[in-house]
Amino acid sequence: MKAPKKLRIALDAMGGDYAPGREIAGAVEALQASHMQFEIVLVGDEQVIRHQLALQKAEHLPFTVAHASQIITMADSPTVALKQKKDSSLAVGMHLHKEGKVDACVSAGNTGAVLSAATLILGRIKHVSRPMIGAFIPAEHGTCLLVDAGANVDCRAQHLYEFAVMGSIYVELLKNKERPSIALLNVGEERLKGTEAVLEAYKLLSSSKYNFIGNVEGSDILKSKADIVVCDGFLGNIVLKFGESVPSFLKNKLRKFSARGIINKLAVSMALWPLKVSLRDMDPNEEGGVPVLGVNGVTIIGHGNSTAKGIKNMILRAVEVAQSQVNQKIEAALAEKGF
Amino acid sequence: MKAPKKLRIALDAMGGDYAPGREIAGAVEALQASHMQFEIVLVGDEQVIRHQLALQKAEHLPFTVAHASQIITMADSPTVALKQKKDSSLAVGMHLHKEGKVDACVSAGNTGAVLSAATLILGRIKHVSRPMIGAFIPAEHGTCLLVDAGANVDCRAQHLYEFAVMGSIYVELLKNKERPSIALLNVGEERLKGTEAVLEAYKLLSSSKYNFIGNVEGSDILKSKADIVVCDGFLGNIVLKFGESVPSFLKNKLRKFSARGIINKLAVSMALWPLKVSLRDMDPNEEGGVPVLGVNGVTIIGHGNSTAKGIKNMILRAVEVAQSQVNQKIEAALAEKGF
Repeated sequence: MKAPKKLRIALDAMGGDYAPGREIAGAVEALQASHMQFEIVLVGDEQVIRHQLALQKAEHLPFTVAHASQIITMADSPTVALKQKKDSSLAVGMHLHKEGKVDACVSAGNTGAVLSAATLILGRIKHVSRPMIGAFIPAEHGTCLLVDAGANVDCRAQHLYEFAVMGSIYVELLKNKERPSIALLNVGEERLKGTEAVLEAYKLLSSSKYNFIGNVEGSDILKSKADIVVCDGFLGNIVLKFGESVPSFLKNKLRKFSARGIINKLAVSMALWPLKVSLRDMDPNEEGGVPVLGVNGVTIIGHGNSTAKGIKNMILRAVEVAQSQVNQKIEAALAEKGF
Repeated sequence: MKAPKKLRIALDAMGGDYAPGREIAGAVEALQASHMQFEIVLVGDEQVIRHQLALQKAEHLPFTVAHASQIITMADSPTVALKQKKDSSLAVGMHLHKEGKVDACVSAGNTGAVLSAATLILGRIKHVSRPMIGAFIPAEHGTCLLVDAGANVDCRAQHLYEFAVMGSIYVELLKNKERPSIALLNVGEERLKGTEAVLEAYKLLSSSKYNFIGNVEGSDILKSKADIVVCDGFLGNIVLKFGESVPSFLKNKLRKFSARGIINKLAVSMALWPLKVSLRDMDPNEEGGVPVLGVNGVTIIGHGNSTAKGIKNMILRAVEVAQSQVNQKIEAALAEKGF
């Protein structure tokens, strides 16, 4: 009997604010956590990577290095960078995936560039009009998948419908949730509220076979009213970033309170433990990153300032997605409804 | 010498989830806090109001009652309700304002209905295309005025420009802030990001005399990057409601943590004091309500579940606005730039 082929994940070792140190630390953690059940291809400057592997005493682990001479930085314009830096770690990693040499390509680098690279190099899944980003937002009961979380500024009803279908399949397979609930993000629960695109998407989803529960408001996301919340990428990006800024806002408020006196300081020090535990879900490192959905492949985008744990979780999530049938199911589902 | 005429504020005594009890309690607090420097006209069912005044031993205070036989509920459709309930407390109060019998009309009732009543009955200020709602969001340093917070679902660049101008004048006069900073809410700080309306509004604001600082992202609102954040009412409503849901999300998380054992419970009880103080700014009752800007008059919309303190602050804010030159300044400012 032949052993099943080990999965191979390409990691953009030069993406992220603290690359390649944290990238490689996270990759080591991922391999150790999974007992080496897959291989990692580290993409980037070979000399720098080998040096880091030596520093972290990780040369014995199942790493391959794919050399890339250039780096796309956070300040680069995504489309310009992809044209000019053909030998960037991101482009090289994505091409390895396109050529079938790896089963996924993950990066904590420039979000726009990763999204563009995935879309341009891997291409779209058949029947998908626009790839998008899904982001898990912590909610009272589990998480809520926000789609689109930032890929598409202007969206028509058809796009919103496709985001809903892709999100539903992703949550069903990756969070093991049967018939997850889908809602449109709107300014009221009434059917006749919202922009033209949202009104039209409401009709499309109502007559679909998916578990569409109607509109939800901004206050319903954290209340876990729906498993998947659908909106255009302009709104999604702003809501996502607003939410991510809450913990540091709170920290600053507590710091000010603490500065008012010794008793205040003591009270805050007592408050830190329950707060830390309660806010743990709000740490993007727990999820590891946001998947790009709708492209012919598996890509997860990590936060630029991911910790090693964040990188580890990004890699482990990519392994899960690569083992799932997400893309085949998306293609089949969107083939059914012909626009 | 003639004493200056006392201001008169109409309060929709039947609006709000706990009307008229809380409305009247708040009105009493407002009069006491200001040493009776203005008068309040309570609008609603006279018998019910007189009964409440007696219950609260407030008959001796400078209240006038204006009878209205109908009530617009939270479940009513705003436009339908305004057509069918001509003798609602809201419509009667707004007509008193229109006729110059009061200097402001405030309500913690159905937000959409208050907005529609203000727009339809009071009419727009000259040169204003669309009245809108401004909402103060607590930020690291003071508050940030979000405009439009929910009045207009679809907005063109001209509307965004007008929101910015109205917001700037409001903050300058009501928060005593000279040349407050204005930013467009966007998915990135770069000039060329965003929807068509936002790109065009960027140009209009750049060439204006206002203190326009460019784009800010969702994460910049709580960081106090700008005094006024401009967006369409669809986005604004969703961001506002998302933000308002954060404290109860946090409370629920802490409750769950607390339930895990006696030590956890103790830690949470210690955490409550600093948290309560730190989150005080996030309580909408501190601000009292959101102003409707762009109408020929003074209207503040309170939260449906306002406390008496919330009602008090809504009334006091209306007094401040009525004493200011907000509307005259808006008319003059928008007359300058002819679209």
